[in-house]
Amino acid sequence: MRIRKRKNTDIRIERCGELLCDSPQKNKGKWQEFFSNNNPVHLEIGCGKGDFMAELAARNPHINYIALEKEKDVIVIALEKAKKAELTNVVYCNNYAENLTDFFDKGEIERIYLNFSDPWRKSRHAKRRLTSEKFLFSYKEILPENGSIFFKTDNRPLFDFSLEQFPLCGFRLENITFDLHNSEFAKDNIMTEYERNFSEKGFPINRLEAYIIPDWTPPEKEETDEKTDNIT
Amino acid sequence: MRIRKRKNTDIRIERCGELLCDSPQKNKGKWQEFFSNNNPVHLEIGCGKGDFMAELAARNPHINYIALEKEKDVIVIALEKAKKAELTNVVYCNNYAENLTDFFDKGEIERIYLNFSDPWRKSRHAKRRLTSEKFLFSYKEILPENGSIFFKTDNRPLFDFSLEQFPLCGFRLENITFDLHNSEFAKDNIMTEYERNFSEKGFPINRLEAYIIPDWTPPEKEETDEKTDNIT
Repeated sequence: MRIRKRKNTDIRIERCGELLCDSPQKNKGKWQEFFSNNNPVHLEIGCGKGDFMAELAARNPHINYIALEKEKDVIVIALEKAKKAELTNVVYCNNYAENLTDFFDKGEIERIYLNFSDPWRKSRHAKRRLTSEKFLFSYKEILPENGSIFFKTDNRPLFDFSLEQFPLCGFRLENITFDLHNSEFAKDNIMTEYERNFSEKGFPINRLEAYIIPDWTPPEKEETDEKTDNIT
Repeated sequence: MRIRKRKNTDIRIERCGELLCDSPQKNKGKWQEFFSNNNPVHLEIGCGKGDFMAELAARNPHINYIALEKEKDVIVIALEKAKKAELTNVVYCNNYAENLTDFFDKGEIERIYLNFSDPWRKSRHAKRRLTSEKFLFSYKEILPENGSIFFKTDNRPLFDFSLEQFPLCGFRLENITFDLHNSEFAKDNIMTEYERNFSEKGFPINRLEAYIIPDWTPPEKEETDEKTDNIT
């Protein structure tokens, strides 16, 4: 996404101060305390301008939400939306996805949302994709045993890449669709700004859910009896 | 596949009589007895001209193989290949995939191979696809709790359809690749006649493994707390 530099961003962010979390690392291990309740905590990585999160949080008052967004000039829009909607169950962090284990304890986040993440088209940049191995293993560090990741993208190569990566990292895939808006999942779907734009142009949206496989261990490369099948 | 009518098919099949199983229903529940050993039994549905099966059976003498093929004028080629190779751990059945539970008891088949199944391109024919719901549930009737299905196809729409169907029917997906011949799975891959032809033309081959999820039950459509997420 091309970021338009905005005037007075800092001042505008300051006005939404109660919705901003400056130092998520200070809340590590005590997010429920931070929210002053025992509700589950869900995380969106890359909330963009925040349409999705504002609607999600409004629909689900009994879930705490944390929205991560690295771009200051984008998160400011998300913050102002949440402030206008008077949401109290969501907080925004102007941070990168690289430091999740600094922010969250094991099992502290029950679900992660990844919406229209940067596809990083060049294969030499594959490691930057939010569904690449390094990231998937870092998500497992903060999810509980039954934790889940909900992922959608219009980018087919990124979706295919992700379909390969999740099972390799010990996730079970569920409710895969290559055309979200014409699927049974459409009725409960909350669109992002980006998604509305792209789906209006007729581009199909891909979506999946990934669940941690309990007690999963990476497959060992070992010889088995059946010669064509020893590929796990 | 367009089938070329062959002369003397019946006579040629008869010459391979020891490799042909006329009435698989007679062996239901006693396939290991039929093979005179306690080795696991694997099944290929739609073996075509049998290149894949002949090589698979030769590589794995300690597995019993059953190859199903509905076209008489095609299975005859597979039979003659197996006879020439003097294979003793494989048997061929000139039957349809619709009647699997007549042929096999629950748990009797440890693994099923589906190679380049008919894509049945029209959506009104989706139910005929070998990875559609009705078939996937019928496979579960003959597989054990840890049973698996290995599936490959050059047809991307069929592969996408299958990626959606397997999880809906209680299978966990593993080792998904959209380009088998350029993946880590290439070295152990056995090509079918069809696959050799298509991959030589540069078409990528898709492949996945699906494993039965033990104690899986179909998800109920019920209300949950989180409004956007109650889609399972």
